[in-house]
Amino acid sequence: MVKRKVILTGDRPTGPLHLGHYVGSLKNRVDMQKTHEQFVMIADAQALTDNAKTPEKVRDSVLEVALDYLAVEIDPSVTTIFIQSLIPELFELTLYYLNLITWNRLKHNPTVKLEIRQKGFGESVPAGFMVYPVFQAADITAFKADLVPVGEDQLPMIEQTNEIVRHFNQTYNCNVLVKTEALIPRFSRLPGVDGKAKMSKSLGNAIFLSDEPKELEKKVKKMYTDPNHLRVEDPGQVEGNPVFIYLDAFGTDTDKIQELKEHYERGGLGDSVLKKYLYEVLDEFLTPIRKRREVYAKDPAEVMRMLKKGTAAAREVTSKTLQEVREAMKINYFH
Amino acid sequence: MVKRKVILTGDRPTGPLHLGHYVGSLKNRVDMQKTHEQFVMIADAQALTDNAKTPEKVRDSVLEVALDYLAVEIDPSVTTIFIQSLIPELFELTLYYLNLITWNRLKHNPTVKLEIRQKGFGESVPAGFMVYPVFQAADITAFKADLVPVGEDQLPMIEQTNEIVRHFNQTYNCNVLVKTEALIPRFSRLPGVDGKAKMSKSLGNAIFLSDEPKELEKKVKKMYTDPNHLRVEDPGQVEGNPVFIYLDAFGTDTDKIQELKEHYERGGLGDSVLKKYLYEVLDEFLTPIRKRREVYAKDPAEVMRMLKKGTAAAREVTSKTLQEVREAMKINYFH
Repeated sequence: MVKRKVILTGDRPTGPLHLGHYVGSLKNRVDMQKTHEQFVMIADAQALTDNAKTPEKVRDSVLEVALDYLAVEIDPSVTTIFIQSLIPELFELTLYYLNLITWNRLKHNPTVKLEIRQKGFGESVPAGFMVYPVFQAADITAFKADLVPVGEDQLPMIEQTNEIVRHFNQTYNCNVLVKTEALIPRFSRLPGVDGKAKMSKSLGNAIFLSDEPKELEKKVKKMYTDPNHLRVEDPGQVEGNPVFIYLDAFGTDTDKIQELKEHYERGGLGDSVLKKYLYEVLDEFLTPIRKRREVYAKDPAEVMRMLKKGTAAAREVTSKTLQEVREAMKINYFH
Repeated sequence: MVKRKVILTGDRPTGPLHLGHYVGSLKNRVDMQKTHEQFVMIADAQALTDNAKTPEKVRDSVLEVALDYLAVEIDPSVTTIFIQSLIPELFELTLYYLNLITWNRLKHNPTVKLEIRQKGFGESVPAGFMVYPVFQAADITAFKADLVPVGEDQLPMIEQTNEIVRHFNQTYNCNVLVKTEALIPRFSRLPGVDGKAKMSKSLGNAIFLSDEPKELEKKVKKMYTDPNHLRVEDPGQVEGNPVFIYLDAFGTDTDKIQELKEHYERGGLGDSVLKKYLYEVLDEFLTPIRKRREVYAKDPAEVMRMLKKGTAAAREVTSKTLQEVREAMKINYFH
């Protein structure tokens, strides 16, 4: 039997997941779990690097995110779902890796620099935030992940990880750590309902997997379309129009969608008719997800047991890696 | 029964311990263990922050340092001696604390700035080295140490720890972490045999607790005294003269030492006679230490068992603290 390739992926638990997550990653995970050994991490420790003052948000989101996973049919019997902060090996590896890279290198990580600007930390960047690329390297290497699904903007993180892999194996003259590869999803992001490039909880432009029909309807009705499409009879623009992007992503009746696109472009198709159809498409997509979510939500203790089990399974892998790391570093005193 | 105050102290295992360690800390530990709850840490993880490429040195020194402890009668039945890297809670706490302080604050730690200059890192400061004040804060707070023996130059480290204690308790509205206090030893450093202000292995001016009589004699004979004391009949200077500093520190016959000082100052006492006496004093001091060390060194497995037991006892304390920390941070998912 050929060994399946290992994938590590996950989410920061800072709120429920939305359609953007589905398109960008959840859908792939449901597919990948059939062909890969998949670890899905609820990255609470990473979420705390910039949410240290609101840990309730992180805590509560752990269950929400787990419910979203189960609702979209990430299957805990084939995918290992675990809570990051309950894997002590990750913290230990982080501190060892910090000795192998320079302070200057950390400072100049392009992804970190970009995110510092985006998050508006100014002069008050938490030290933990600067260190998180190394923490990510610990995550990835602890599982010896062959593949890590990331957006293009995260490529420097993968590079940083591979640099640490190289340094470690060279310094300790071993091949304990494994080089990883970015897996850039074809369809990586969905625009927000406001037309902004990225759907995001913090931008307030997201449709959540757990949104009830009424909430969904409200959001779709207010959606950004073609701002120049003022009267029904005017021709409208399909390209870049979030309504059509959503239809392409979630609709199943491609003929009908093609017809609507042509109608919209030549004029005579009103936004409200179009949005009514999008609502139906999304509601059809979300209904089974919502239903599964409701069932799981009735027994949160069972979901937590699933997480506990996944975390224990994850630790079997990471504790083996840490043992190899300590052996390579010659600090395996009692083995 | 009044709760004994908790002391945390320890050494970086980068070589055997010397007379400077004895005067500056080991002696105090032997005294303190009678009246305090004492934890002595072999700080291998910290030693790795600037010895990442020579882990054998760190590894081998763990046993050497433990032998030195036992030889000077730090008693493992009352003092908990443990290996830092085997306490995973310390790594985890470090990463949480890093979220509570800013990158700027880390950069401006005066002790770290000084040590960076001393160690000549230039532009290649390991990131782990910048982070180590936070790692120390994890050590201290994990044991809820009331007292930490440190030199004056380490006061910024204690300040940094208390800052983290304040931030943590404020942020999470709790009183889990305990403020600590520096315990500055009266007699904090011993000059080197070369007359330099500090005895240090890396300066090559140390007399080790494990030095054999021949080695001791050689080092004492070459000792720096008063450079202006050229002929036996010349008056010599006692103050700042390392030979007299050593006599004051290790001699027991204070009358005789007083007499020698007066003789040296008025002239007529040759350095070689004086050094012969110092050799006798030091050899008398070191003989029982050397003997005990030899006994323990015959059974290194037994010493490692002692360390394993101490480490397990230490973890009982730190895992309780971590549990409280996680509870305060509301990430105690399964409790």
